[in-house]
Amino acid sequence: MPSLRSDFSENLGSAPKTAMRQSFMDMALEEARAAAAAGEVPVGCVIVYSGEVIACAGNRTLTDFDPTAHAEMLAIREATTAIGAQRLADCDLYVTLEPCTMCAAAISYARIRRVYYGAADPKGGAVENGVRFFSSSTCHHRPEVYGGIGEAEAAALLQEFFRKLR
Amino acid sequence: MPSLRSDFSENLGSAPKTAMRQSFMDMALEEARAAAAAGEVPVGCVIVYSGEVIACAGNRTLTDFDPTAHAEMLAIREATTAIGAQRLADCDLYVTLEPCTMCAAAISYARIRRVYYGAADPKGGAVENGVRFFSSSTCHHRPEVYGGIGEAEAAALLQEFFRKLR
Repeated sequence: MPSLRSDFSENLGSAPKTAMRQSFMDMALEEARAAAAAGEVPVGCVIVYSGEVIACAGNRTLTDFDPTAHAEMLAIREATTAIGAQRLADCDLYVTLEPCTMCAAAISYARIRRVYYGAADPKGGAVENGVRFFSSSTCHHRPEVYGGIGEAEAAALLQEFFRKLR
Repeated sequence: MPSLRSDFSENLGSAPKTAMRQSFMDMALEEARAAAAAGEVPVGCVIVYSGEVIACAGNRTLTDFDPTAHAEMLAIREATTAIGAQRLADCDLYVTLEPCTMCAAAISYARIRRVYYGAADPKGGAVENGVRFFSSSTCHHRPEVYGGIGEAEAAALLQEFFRKLR
């Protein structure tokens, strides 16, 4: 696994590529905002194949009565259904919050190529926190991982959401 | 977390209770056999509330083009939809194979009360193997866990399935 919070210019080259990646994270943030508007924890996700968004989702655990309805799980299921295959090799996933244990495993099972995420999640994350699934002995596909993309906005959305709940 | 492979007589009392639990595991094994017949990895799961089965499923990852369609995930979604709530407090889950990282986390998020499983899974399990999620710092609900229930039959189903694949 590459080091987290890598220098994008080093890994991905020129400014337009970085701008494109930021724009995919902006779309994930838009999904997070829509989730918040529906009373859900504001996390959003998009999956990209060959420069095109093939799936996008926000959290829907309350709406769907489904504790597994995290943004990443919904986007993975949308993408695999769209493609008609259960593996998303050559696909990249953008999510506003560090994936949890369930989602990190699902990302690995789906063979996602790269994961870009926003805010770290010390309480529930499983990439740089918690079980660090991608570094575990039972992880059989490790995506490249880049954290801290759009971090400030993702974290602000979550803080605002939980402040209102109190 | 109670020790795995506990003595049932110690934890659960009289023989009829043990027999009832075996019959729920038999139903999970039936789901596993049906999954094998459909070409899926033979794992089956049932969820029980107040002595009644409220959800049952076998693996459907190939059928559904969905890497997240493990038996436990499908059964949890079926149960929460049936109940109209995203938490399954007071529900018990029976599964023929040690839950993987994704499913162990989903079981925790769903607030399942007790997990009974069959064969251990050193390659992919996350209860007594791998990330041992229920003992991790980012696990915020720990079910009671009992392994080795119906283990021989569950393991035989898996061995036969993978033998045929070779």
